[in-house]
Amino acid sequence: MTHDDLLPAVPDIADAALAARLQAVLDNKTKPLGALGRLEALALRLGTILGTESPALEAPQMLVCAADHGLAARGVSAYPSDVTWQMVENFLAGGAAVSVLARQHGLALTVADCGVRRDFQPRPGLVQRRIAPGTADASAGPAMSAAQCAQAIANGREIVRALPGNALLLGEMGIGNSSAAALLLARLADIDIDRCTGAGTGLDAEGLARKRAVLREVLLALHARATAPLDALAALGGFEIATLVGAVLQAAEERRVIVLDGFIASAAVLVAQALRPHVAQRCVAAHVSAEPGHALLLERLQLEPLLNLGLRLGEGSGGALAWPLLESACRIVREMASFESAGVSRKDA
Amino acid sequence: MTHDDLLPAVPDIADAALAARLQAVLDNKTKPLGALGRLEALALRLGTILGTESPALEAPQMLVCAADHGLAARGVSAYPSDVTWQMVENFLAGGAAVSVLARQHGLALTVADCGVRRDFQPRPGLVQRRIAPGTADASAGPAMSAAQCAQAIANGREIVRALPGNALLLGEMGIGNSSAAALLLARLADIDIDRCTGAGTGLDAEGLARKRAVLREVLLALHARATAPLDALAALGGFEIATLVGAVLQAAEERRVIVLDGFIASAAVLVAQALRPHVAQRCVAAHVSAEPGHALLLERLQLEPLLNLGLRLGEGSGGALAWPLLESACRIVREMASFESAGVSRKDA
Repeated sequence: MTHDDLLPAVPDIADAALAARLQAVLDNKTKPLGALGRLEALALRLGTILGTESPALEAPQMLVCAADHGLAARGVSAYPSDVTWQMVENFLAGGAAVSVLARQHGLALTVADCGVRRDFQPRPGLVQRRIAPGTADASAGPAMSAAQCAQAIANGREIVRALPGNALLLGEMGIGNSSAAALLLARLADIDIDRCTGAGTGLDAEGLARKRAVLREVLLALHARATAPLDALAALGGFEIATLVGAVLQAAEERRVIVLDGFIASAAVLVAQALRPHVAQRCVAAHVSAEPGHALLLERLQLEPLLNLGLRLGEGSGGALAWPLLESACRIVREMASFESAGVSRKDA
Repeated sequence: MTHDDLLPAVPDIADAALAARLQAVLDNKTKPLGALGRLEALALRLGTILGTESPALEAPQMLVCAADHGLAARGVSAYPSDVTWQMVENFLAGGAAVSVLARQHGLALTVADCGVRRDFQPRPGLVQRRIAPGTADASAGPAMSAAQCAQAIANGREIVRALPGNALLLGEMGIGNSSAAALLLARLADIDIDRCTGAGTGLDAEGLARKRAVLREVLLALHARATAPLDALAALGGFEIATLVGAVLQAAEERRVIVLDGFIASAAVLVAQALRPHVAQRCVAAHVSAEPGHALLLERLQLEPLLNLGLRLGEGSGGALAWPLLESACRIVREMASFESAGVSRKDA
């Protein structure tokens, strides 16, 4: 499969004329100019992505991609790898944070097994696209082969293609995956690994020092020196991250609104953006997490987060929490009265 | 009417045993300790206010209090006073930002005419408690008499008493009322008026300088030197602010959750807190606005805002935007699985 077969075209969607029309709509609403602050910028972005002066979000899809990581054997996480499959069961049973929040906001929840070390019983809401039972240990060799990486991306594209709606919320689960995200950020954005690395689910100081030492070792290994996005993804990533890269690319091609979550979901967008530089135009950063690499990553993508609540859970929980703000931005555009229609005086009246 | 007839008792509701039980519930949920960040602190606060380990928000009420301000004649606002009544009509017709957002989130919307210069036709959703057609010019004498102030507070209490539910969201409308809020903050928190004063709905630099000069003049006037909360409220406040003070006190007595909005609604809470020092325990700060005095005011109340989106609209719009986060905090407590119930391994497993 060639690069171009695997990766869709993601054209520039900047549209000055549409932006001007959207701005005029906002400026005619019954409020002082700009008084809704960043909600107005969000409305402009959503209108631009959906290509309309009357943006409406339809059938939003929360896609949680899960996989295990060979690197977890090196003690880079505070939790055992079994938590990955246990949490997949929890997502499907409706008891995880993202399950609760998706229910609250009417987000359809799809959980994709992209490479968990467990055989799941088929059931509604579970999509089985397992590449292998966990990646290989990235400190000893590439986390996955180029073929596995391409397959995961193709899977992500196929999963999104089958989902309805015009908005995709990204979620993930995988013990060890904040290490994969830190490695990808360090490599693709050329940032020192220590600055990219945080406590993840809750390492203590000793654990964090160990994690940093392991990640530094990985980056120095001969097999992990590639800087081309797909090579770096195969060497350092995870199956859930690679599947999310495909999901993001597919959503971008279809001009769906893409809602980032925390550090790991955002790392998938970083890879997709490195492959197709107009991906970030379709993205909304839901929040900035307590994981220190996340702020650096969002800065790199030039995305300003909506929330800053010290979250560090992942799963898509931050995307779900921010979701009503996207809805509000669209409703402001569609439902607020104009000065004329409401008979309200302007500033210079 | 004596002080104690007018103002309800608002006892300390701090409860270490309940807080410990709530913390234990949160810590047993299937997530790393503290991984939901400030959403967990919010859940603790809501549980404390409602006095339960299983907090549930019921029949939330958005109360928008409106009134005109004599001081507006001094050119302290970018908009003409007629906008106050025009926006009341817009609230009731469903076209204002707060109308749209209240509809989105199922918040019952009540608009109270506390002193607008306009006769409104009675209709559903409108409560008519007009003290007078606008306050007097606070630069020439007290904005209202002590009796008017007491009546407005009593009105606010009565309005809330008649509303169902266990959560009150504060909103307001009144051309000129960011001046009243700035004056109250300067007086009650002893902060220089320049730091309390911003562009409101959108003054230019010249307008802002004029507003600051007028407000400084007001604070120096003999009739406006009182520092006791009710005296300051009568001298400097507005009928909508005084009515909100009563609404806040009543909600606090009933242990409703009180959701602040922007600078003006928060100023009413500042007055209520000065009268009854445990009011802020019942409060949630929805956001910090672009109006510079708001951050100072929230700091004084020791409330950390949930959102920071550069809003400067008022109406209750920020409270409505933050509302789903309060819902989420309650649902996390009530609906998430525990490690035991979901069979998920703990950190030290």
